Amino acid sequence: MQFSHSSPVKLVFGPGRLDALATEPLPGTKALLLTSNGTAVERIGALGRVKTMLEARGLPYVHVAAVEPNPLSTTVMAVSKTVREEKCDFIIALGGGSVMDAAKAIGIVATNDGDIWDYVQQGRGGRRPIENAPIPLVAITTTAGTGSEVDGGGVITNPVTREKVGLGGHVNCYPKLAIVDPELMRSVPPRLTAYQGFDALFHAIEGYVTKRPNFLSDMYALESVRHVARGLARAVKDGDDLEAREHMAFANTLSGYVMTCCRLTSQHSMEHALSAFHPELPHGAGLIMLSLAYFGHMIKTGARSERFVELARALGHRDAVRPEDFLRALHELQVACGVADLKMSDWGITREEIPALAENCRSAGALLFEQDPVALTFEDTVAIYEAAYR
Amino acid sequence: MQFSHSSPVKLVFGPGRLDALATEPLPGTKALLLTSNGTAVERIGALGRVKTMLEARGLPYVHVAAVEPNPLSTTVMAVSKTVREEKCDFIIALGGGSVMDAAKAIGIVATNDGDIWDYVQQGRGGRRPIENAPIPLVAITTTAGTGSEVDGGGVITNPVTREKVGLGGHVNCYPKLAIVDPELMRSVPPRLTAYQGFDALFHAIEGYVTKRPNFLSDMYALESVRHVARGLARAVKDGDDLEAREHMAFANTLSGYVMTCCRLTSQHSMEHALSAFHPELPHGAGLIMLSLAYFGHMIKTGARSERFVELARALGHRDAVRPEDFLRALHELQVACGVADLKMSDWGITREEIPALAENCRSAGALLFEQDPVALTFEDTVAIYEAAYR
Repeated sequence: MQFSHSSPVKLVFGPGRLDALATEPLPGTKALLLTSNGTAVERIGALGRVKTMLEARGLPYVHVAAVEPNPLSTTVMAVSKTVREEKCDFIIALGGGSVMDAAKAIGIVATNDGDIWDYVQQGRGGRRPIENAPIPLVAITTTAGTGSEVDGGGVITNPVTREKVGLGGHVNCYPKLAIVDPELMRSVPPRLTAYQGFDALFHAIEGYVTKRPNFLSDMYALESVRHVARGLARAVKDGDDLEAREHMAFANTLSGYVMTCCRLTSQHSMEHALSAFHPELPHGAGLIMLSLAYFGHMIKTGARSERFVELARALGHRDAVRPEDFLRALHELQVACGVADLKMSDWGITREEIPALAENCRSAGALLFEQDPVALTFEDTVAIYEAAYR
Repeated sequence: MQFSHSSPVKLVFGPGRLDALATEPLPGTKALLLTSNGTAVERIGALGRVKTMLEARGLPYVHVAAVEPNPLSTTVMAVSKTVREEKCDFIIALGGGSVMDAAKAIGIVATNDGDIWDYVQQGRGGRRPIENAPIPLVAITTTAGTGSEVDGGGVITNPVTREKVGLGGHVNCYPKLAIVDPELMRSVPPRLTAYQGFDALFHAIEGYVTKRPNFLSDMYALESVRHVARGLARAVKDGDDLEAREHMAFANTLSGYVMTCCRLTSQHSMEHALSAFHPELPHGAGLIMLSLAYFGHMIKTGARSERFVELARALGHRDAVRPEDFLRALHELQVACGVADLKMSDWGITREEIPALAENCRSAGALLFEQDPVALTFEDTVAIYEAAYR
């Protein structure tokens, strides 16, 4: 078994640790403070605290509240213009995965010419290399869902090509500093807590059943699943259960590490097609709706049987012996989190779209299909969408 | 729970990966190539391969074969003189824990004046801060025992003060690049394989029962123990069992990560006194001889009961329910590795030395005594040595 690993991120973890921004070394002299186009970070007081700490340090910043859920390439380009005009030399991303992912993309086009899609390496991307170092990034995550605070990639949606794909690939796409403060996650509502938590869980699960795992990715993945098992249903039930939030914050960070040392499988590409076609669909909800059909198919092929048993055990079913026990454990967790009854049709997805979805994900998200332990055909892909459709 | 973590080491892992030295970026222009005063790295061909790769890169180097087991502060000072005279600007440490630990100390005094003991922060050390950045380090480990290739500390013995203590504390004490190639470990003889493997195991176990563990150290520690359980007895039985060597190489690296995010307990200080008094005693053998008495005492105090049950499970006793099951699992592993009958008297240790050993470890190794979950008195320390003595 051969692998390499380098995680250049300094991780600061724990309730109250947002305060570390007052003292930690920062990788620049003028910040773009990037937040979502919503009001959550203001409401929970995090935005105010960040501004106060930057002001106390005498560090100038420009605040841009612009990032939508499923961030758009057009937003990336607009904000990068501000970065250049204002001569910001680093970014502080305060928010969830969308904000951190957008920040990585903005960092790239802040120092490299052309459109962000020029630097996408698959689908209709321009496949240009990132020649100049992106401006560095500090990531402060307010959700437990993407692990983006410790990995080197981001997912951006192109509204013209209707593609939603990952980009990154430069060491500066990794944040220099990641602050993971579970207290900031207390006010995430139950439904979003579940969506984001399942996103983290599926990063770990896909990384565990992928074609080329290694000792390191296995460690991160299984430990992430164990923390999800300890925290997710509790955090959904009671957002103020700080211990549960700690477990989920850590599970999420681990699932980010999974992505630094192995590749996910095609479930993620299949979901990206869903939310590329229906941008109002939360990524985690899409994954939840696909998951039982997706992993059910994988288990039927006989792939990764022992690993599914281990996953069931990590989810708390210590007596698991068959791969199907994993499906039972996954379904139980979905029931416990109140997300077992999601329907694609509730988000406007139609059965007629399925062939187009299958085409889209196999093109825009081709890289992940190469990571499946048993390759999916076009017909398999359609069949999984069909089985998952309600 | 609050913790910070930063591991600035690029890890390259896998059989055959010594070859990465031909292509990985190196942190300098002229290397001190440091090896032990023995012949192992020459015999296994690693030294020749390293020299060939450096020559092919056109990278000048000075080879110094100087480091003894339990490296001495006098050796550190002598080699640092060579580094200055030859104007080497980085170190390649090729060997086991002794070589890598010595390299870290040499790196410190290559750029900072005075004696290495000036920079020791406990016992009779001078407690000076490291003002200038040590010269950077590439670590190529040929054993699975200390985890030194990914952590930022080293253990050096002062023959004058008879102290054996840890030092480090600058980011450059972490290697920039760590190559962990299990093939290099095939020729380690059974007895040394066992000693080194138990050293790795005890790093993990101490880090798991320490006073202030955290999610991250717990993950590294338990996963390290699991890999030891899968590989150690097999690697002792058949050194050419590459799969077993892979498990042990990885367990060892994980146990190094444990030391980057939490502190070990006093068992390590108690052993350092033994091998400071008797430098021919291998560190791992000393730990093995102390371990059942040491952890037996801890378990009797009622400390860490649940964690000892988890450790027993990680060692392969899936049915463990009582903390004492850990002692049983540990003893079984020592039997399986042929090291259950080691006697302190065989290394010339006398019962009469015990009070002096207890004094020594509580002074030179005071920092680790602060990490015990229940504080040991002087009398407890003596009693553990007495119980372990044969």
